[in-house]
Amino acid sequence: MTQKRIRDFGVKIGKLETGASNSITDVEGVTVGHVTLSEGNMQTGVTSIIPHDGNIFMEKLIASSHVINGFGKTMGTIQMKELGVLETPIILTNTLSIGTAADALIQYMLDKNPEIGQTTGTVNPIVGECNDMFLNDVRAQFVNRNHVVEALENAGTKVIEGSVGAGTGMLCYSLKGGIGTSSRCFSIDNETFTVGLLVLSNFGILSDLLINGRAIGQELKEALLKSWEEKDKGSVMIIVATDLPVSERQLNRIIKRSVTGLSRTGSIITHGSGEVVIGFSTATKIPHNKPNHITTIPTIHEEDMDLAFRAVGEAVEEAVLNSLVTATHVKGRDGNERPAFKDLLAEFDIQLT
Amino acid sequence: MTQKRIRDFGVKIGKLETGASNSITDVEGVTVGHVTLSEGNMQTGVTSIIPHDGNIFMEKLIASSHVINGFGKTMGTIQMKELGVLETPIILTNTLSIGTAADALIQYMLDKNPEIGQTTGTVNPIVGECNDMFLNDVRAQFVNRNHVVEALENAGTKVIEGSVGAGTGMLCYSLKGGIGTSSRCFSIDNETFTVGLLVLSNFGILSDLLINGRAIGQELKEALLKSWEEKDKGSVMIIVATDLPVSERQLNRIIKRSVTGLSRTGSIITHGSGEVVIGFSTATKIPHNKPNHITTIPTIHEEDMDLAFRAVGEAVEEAVLNSLVTATHVKGRDGNERPAFKDLLAEFDIQLT
Amino acid sequence: MTQKRIRDFGVKIGKLETGASNSITDVEGVTVGHVTLSEGNMQTGVTSIIPHDGNIFMEKLIASSHVINGFGKTMGTIQMKELGVLETPIILTNTLSIGTAADALIQYMLDKNPEIGQTTGTVNPIVGECNDMFLNDVRAQFVNRNHVVEALENAGTKVIEGSVGAGTGMLCYSLKGGIGTSSRCFSIDNETFTVGLLVLSNFGILSDLLINGRAIGQELKEALLKSWEEKDKGSVMIIVATDLPVSERQLNRIIKRSVTGLSRTGSIITHGSGEVVIGFSTATKIPHNKPNHITTIPTIHEEDMDLAFRAVGEAVEEAVLNSLVTATHVKGRDGNERPAFKDLLAEFDIQLT
Amino acid sequence: MTQKRIRDFGVKIGKLETGASNSITDVEGVTVGHVTLSEGNMQTGVTSIIPHDGNIFMEKLIASSHVINGFGKTMGTIQMKELGVLETPIILTNTLSIGTAADALIQYMLDKNPEIGQTTGTVNPIVGECNDMFLNDVRAQFVNRNHVVEALENAGTKVIEGSVGAGTGMLCYSLKGGIGTSSRCFSIDNETFTVGLLVLSNFGILSDLLINGRAIGQELKEALLKSWEEKDKGSVMIIVATDLPVSERQLNRIIKRSVTGLSRTGSIITHGSGEVVIGFSTATKIPHNKPNHITTIPTIHEEDMDLAFRAVGEAVEEAVLNSLVTATHVKGRDGNERPAFKDLLAEFDIQLT
Repeated sequence: MTQKRIRDFGVKIGKLETGASNSITDVEGVTVGHVTLSEGNMQTGVTSIIPHDGNIFMEKLIASSHVINGFGKTMGTIQMKELGVLETPIILTNTLSIGTAADALIQYMLDKNPEIGQTTGTVNPIVGECNDMFLNDVRAQFVNRNHVVEALENAGTKVIEGSVGAGTGMLCYSLKGGIGTSSRCFSIDNETFTVGLLVLSNFGILSDLLINGRAIGQELKEALLKSWEEKDKGSVMIIVATDLPVSERQLNRIIKRSVTGLSRTGSIITHGSGEVVIGFSTATKIPHNKPNHITTIPTIHEEDMDLAFRAVGEAVEEAVLNSLVTATHVKGRDGNERPAFKDLLAEFDIQLT
Repeated sequence: MTQKRIRDFGVKIGKLETGASNSITDVEGVTVGHVTLSEGNMQTGVTSIIPHDGNIFMEKLIASSHVINGFGKTMGTIQMKELGVLETPIILTNTLSIGTAADALIQYMLDKNPEIGQTTGTVNPIVGECNDMFLNDVRAQFVNRNHVVEALENAGTKVIEGSVGAGTGMLCYSLKGGIGTSSRCFSIDNETFTVGLLVLSNFGILSDLLINGRAIGQELKEALLKSWEEKDKGSVMIIVATDLPVSERQLNRIIKRSVTGLSRTGSIITHGSGEVVIGFSTATKIPHNKPNHITTIPTIHEEDMDLAFRAVGEAVEEAVLNSLVTATHVKGRDGNERPAFKDLLAEFDIQLT
Repeated sequence: MTQKRIRDFGVKIGKLETGASNSITDVEGVTVGHVTLSEGNMQTGVTSIIPHDGNIFMEKLIASSHVINGFGKTMGTIQMKELGVLETPIILTNTLSIGTAADALIQYMLDKNPEIGQTTGTVNPIVGECNDMFLNDVRAQFVNRNHVVEALENAGTKVIEGSVGAGTGMLCYSLKGGIGTSSRCFSIDNETFTVGLLVLSNFGILSDLLINGRAIGQELKEALLKSWEEKDKGSVMIIVATDLPVSERQLNRIIKRSVTGLSRTGSIITHGSGEVVIGFSTATKIPHNKPNHITTIPTIHEEDMDLAFRAVGEAVEEAVLNSLVTATHVKGRDGNERPAFKDLLAEFDIQLT
Repeated sequence: MTQKRIRDFGVKIGKLETGASNSITDVEGVTVGHVTLSEGNMQTGVTSIIPHDGNIFMEKLIASSHVINGFGKTMGTIQMKELGVLETPIILTNTLSIGTAADALIQYMLDKNPEIGQTTGTVNPIVGECNDMFLNDVRAQFVNRNHVVEALENAGTKVIEGSVGAGTGMLCYSLKGGIGTSSRCFSIDNETFTVGLLVLSNFGILSDLLINGRAIGQELKEALLKSWEEKDKGSVMIIVATDLPVSERQLNRIIKRSVTGLSRTGSIITHGSGEVVIGFSTATKIPHNKPNHITTIPTIHEEDMDLAFRAVGEAVEEAVLNSLVTATHVKGRDGNERPAFKDLLAEFDIQLT
């Protein structure tokens, strides 16, 4: 299946080049998996992001999180902040399934690492969420432990976008949203680095939507000629991967710039929208077991940060738009439904360029 | 059962008066429940703290968290920081059972509040943990959802201390630790206020233990005349309740002072010890649904904060010591065992006064 | 003097109404003063923001700060965070004059409050800065204590924008920038509230500039047909005033949304740009001396925050654009110069609508 | 002059070895200077800490700050947090002289670095303070720019303690306090590292004072048989130097442990006491100018942090006690006076061992 992405509509975001697949998996070693649960009142799922293909617990990655708006339940950020590392895959799902997802991810890590809780300490599962209750009967807690394992096991480099995985029941600017991805490349001292992005979009009201500066949301709202519920009870999860050699402080500076991209799609970061960013760098592996020598961490000079700042802002903007244009119409809980942006474009004969 | 507490050994901590029961439940409306799972390799459990006897989701409490050392997996603090409220009971358990505990707590809240995920948003479960892997087979994940519900349902004002509930398999200064509680009272403008404390102790090495300034840990270590594993892989959870009218900023200032009490028991706050404080005030109920008027939050003047600062430091110190002197000997996983402090005092004929 | 502002060019930012003067002084009691030092290599100055017309030290305001990018030297935020109040006017000046400004502001406060340092504690001066070294010989430290006092004494409700006060030597998107202001009004439960904004703009590169979504910076850069230094070594200070009854936590949430407005003018928040927001609410006066009763703080319900979030984003966007379109051409240090945006519009015959 | 320090009274704090001089200057390259202004109502001064003997602006050090209680006016921490480096000496003085100190330190840096504000950006001065208003007429602002330069110029490896420099007018546990220093050494993988500490003590009330667990403050208070003002309006500044190779995150973890030492001297961290820690590591020099290669930062493994944690706690405890036992009686503003601890020991014939 080839999905029509925002560039296929003629919209080019920003100044930097994209990576080969314009997705988070352009960062070598990163893979993404989905489990989609879509039937009637059940419109939810699980998305996994696996940061490298080795033993993540034994070879941790420098990582950081940033809370844009904390009306959210993301797990694992306390330890990530203290120790500056990621030691598990990242799981995204609906808000009320975080306990199940954590439980499943812990079991997955125990299975792969017999020393956890036996001869070494415990493990810090990273689970993020958005609330899909408009389209999904979130109280039913459809996600079970097997779904989480399945999402981990089917991870690959091809990332499906839109109404899939954790994005199955999510909204974006009052339309159907979900999973989007994008990437940017840039050079420092003749070496090329990549920033890859994945978003789980579930935020915004239609009349705020901007595409490359155009107030398309306002246009659509007028075209729809009807009252349109515009209460934002959403959220957005943003996962940033990079192969840039950075300290956790530098990485935190980079991922904080996600908000520039969100803002340029029209977000005002509403009260009810939990917005959390989690980033990791694949450039350095931090060993779980103490080595017999001082570790050295390669880091770029602060002067070179602006390229990464630009990259992450552009990639967030594009990933959100990709989540919007690839999403398909969903009718879910109690007959609630949300149209696909691309269907509205066709219906009202709107060109994006 | 009457337990012999640190004051029963003649040790009086600090200058302020205690509440009637010298426990967290001296703060009116607060109750505590335990489920203890103690048999062979299974040495773990669940402790619940219920902050008031009404509908906590509909009538939230001003709340705050503070991370002393973030090598821990406490859930729910992102939203607590953003919104400044507690909307569920607090569950304490072992590290690898946080997913299960969150899942059970979510279900408990859904059952009590049919509007969650239906007509209103979701719920933010608060779950704290320590790692009991030395005495408990933590990989076996003995805690199930029913245990969590049971701990919530059996909550009352009488708090059992020591090797019970979440404290069943925990260590304190290399000896058996677990649950401890204490409280302090003080007057502002002729009104009496209470700070109540509960700790789940699981930190420290024997040779660091101080009791009211006396280096009893060093004495005991010499008396034991043997090599003693002193690697701290522990943690401590501290729950602070008060009826003092405070803003979330003021509450945060108060709970941060927990560290003075910890330090005076000898803690150096080791790398591996996740130390997290969660506090709430019962003085103001924040309505979930928007009222048709501006809310007013009563708050004390900043000048009166020192009494609360002193109270929380003293109560932490005493609660840790209570957890230590009430704990009983436990033999658990793979025959691992830890002596009770009180048994050592008897064995070596050491008086605390 | 009437200045032509962005609305006079036909550009309307956002959805909310402005206040009467579309400036920070729409928040009752707030005044602004400037001292402009513009001659040859000296292109700098001082801007004061006085939050209310009473004794600010004795009647403090709830206040909060937020760091968007911390490459800056703003003073006073540690205490503001701990105590949640503003107790002095706010001074803005160039980076190397912060010591002088703090010194002068301290003296100003001592003169007004004989009890400071005598019978009560000390005072926490708030000083913000941007680096005007491109147009100003910042090493010469032209600002002296009298300039600061003068800026405080000439404060009024009419706010001059552009190349004045602290903005005299500042740049915005590689063009001349400086002081800009704007405001927004909205109703909650039939009561009208105001958010007022003042920016000291000194950030961005031309090719990133957006006006209401239009990539005007790119157009101008192409029109200029020349190499254009686009290194951002800037900063932006944002002062947010409101009469909304909020806690310091709520105020912090509001001022954090400044970044959405910045982003929509094209900012990527570069490494070298110190970006700091300081906000205060005039709704509640916190007495310095302890009253003989519990204070009550009126606060809106969290559900009503979105209006304030939208207001602050819109007002930042408009204030930045006002700083840009009102600024006049300046030639300063070593002959360095920056054109005025409005002159370029005329030169290339560009209409904004 | 040889000063009698706490070890000379027979009191040994902690388990680790001290460095050669048991002072912050045991960390190679660190020097300390004082200017003491002591006459009548003028009881104040300046203390400088110079982190290495090269060009600090061109070769920055990894640095971090931590706020224990933010009722203080320390300058420069925003940028230190963002960029993780120290680029100037550290100046300590009284609260109302921070503007003057910043101004002088900026000028000192401009003189040494002609490129600042000319061809490169600006500089971030680090100034800490405590309030000496009880003994010093702080409103008179006795400190001038020359005093600051003098304190920088007379810096050396021999550290005088007690009523000197910035400590001239400071109090400690209601007695005379001021400057104290201490150090600890430990080995990792057969290499020896040092943590050096300097405190400016100005906090606490007599009845809380503990020395190695003994409630000597209570004893003294009873011996003094008189009412004793015990209102804490103080502060403490803590400067931590180390040669340990650490990231800024790791350094932050280390300096946070200062509070354990403070607590063990009896502090409850009162509301009015601004308590700020600033730390730096001399192990890595971060170049101001971008090098033509990726920088590598040597860092210890997290498992080795506990030694540093223990070191900083012990050194803070000892440095505070050194400030107390070396301080001499001072009579200052309006005849206010504070006795020296050592004089009280003699008067009441109290032995510390």
